[in-house]
Amino acid sequence: MPDKIKISENILSYNEEFAINNRKLLNEKNVFSVNIMASPGAGKTSTIIKTFEFMNGKYKMGMVNGDLATSIDTDKAIQSGIIAVQINTGGGCHLDAQMLKNALIELPLKSLDALVVENVGNLVCPANFDLGTDKNILIASIPEGDDKPYKYPGIYRGVDVLIINKMDLMPYIDFDFEYFKKGVEILNPGLVTFPISCVTGKGIENWVSWFVENIKEIN
Amino acid sequence: MPDKIKISENILSYNEEFAINNRKLLNEKNVFSVNIMASPGAGKTSTIIKTFEFMNGKYKMGMVNGDLATSIDTDKAIQSGIIAVQINTGGGCHLDAQMLKNALIELPLKSLDALVVENVGNLVCPANFDLGTDKNILIASIPEGDDKPYKYPGIYRGVDVLIINKMDLMPYIDFDFEYFKKGVEILNPGLVTFPISCVTGKGIENWVSWFVENIKEIN
Repeated sequence: MPDKIKISENILSYNEEFAINNRKLLNEKNVFSVNIMASPGAGKTSTIIKTFEFMNGKYKMGMVNGDLATSIDTDKAIQSGIIAVQINTGGGCHLDAQMLKNALIELPLKSLDALVVENVGNLVCPANFDLGTDKNILIASIPEGDDKPYKYPGIYRGVDVLIINKMDLMPYIDFDFEYFKKGVEILNPGLVTFPISCVTGKGIENWVSWFVENIKEIN
Repeated sequence: MPDKIKISENILSYNEEFAINNRKLLNEKNVFSVNIMASPGAGKTSTIIKTFEFMNGKYKMGMVNGDLATSIDTDKAIQSGIIAVQINTGGGCHLDAQMLKNALIELPLKSLDALVVENVGNLVCPANFDLGTDKNILIASIPEGDDKPYKYPGIYRGVDVLIINKMDLMPYIDFDFEYFKKGVEILNPGLVTFPISCVTGKGIENWVSWFVENIKEIN
């Protein structure tokens, strides 16, 4: 069905134009930006809030949160001191670069050091849409199971960093870490990986060091 | 953008035609059928295998498994004695009724009592595509968090049964059951709900009773 393919190509190149402009704008304003993707409930918001807390007020961070409905995550982020903007996709399964463009207008980019975009909880669709951020981050979580790289290769293949959250649940779950890592290595050799727990705080420091290093490089 | 809306309407009505035919075929063959949807790693395959085990060989069950890649789940199901067919969506974020139609051809429907369709792990897109099964089932899991009904209302609104899996992890996770249930009740009042654990087996019997009751009603 060549018609279907053409529509799909058009949507993606339309998105790419907005992504290029977002990237340009964020670079001009010296804002280090990441697009955080994950399954529903992997701990995207918790990780973002912990990241902010661990930076001890040294850097100003903005957040754009994408959800089908509600502003639960944005409210939590604002309470923690993050400057946050909500995008409700109204049923849409991913953020696209145009949505991010509209959200960026509402943020004081000039005064921000970093911007974190929390994508819709979904391991499939967000992988296809470049938002124009500097880095793409995937959060996996232990209860999701050790076979996820094999089953959702697209998203594992396309990211710059992998965070493995909920490490504190390891004693209670049958999770083969070697099997998981092998799957990741096949898809994305040498991928930078941070095992963390947002509950105990273990491992967050390493991830935040990487994050701060990237902020410094831009400024 | 009226063009976009039109394309979306066409895809859905195209799907609906196949769904009607699937429903007709499954009813003619006296096969009770369910479409199981969930987040990645909520325990769809484990629940399906436990369901089959708890029926003690009294009923013949078929399975159609949808995944972006691999046949990990289908292999597990076949090992358990389920007659299973794999659909690889090649990156696609949901099953549609035409994919199911193509899989049904490969199954010995005449000799089956029940058919379980395991959808792609995704809380967004599968909700929009009727496959033509008798019932739509959602599996939530405790580690996903208690706010999921609020954040993914579409899928909670559209299902006939809710299974809450991984109840054994309750002691280790901050999960407000009342808050979760309140969210479900707003979206889908009186929804039939089965809390279960595929690890301990607790609660599976109640769910399987419901399942077998439905098989008997058709035969």
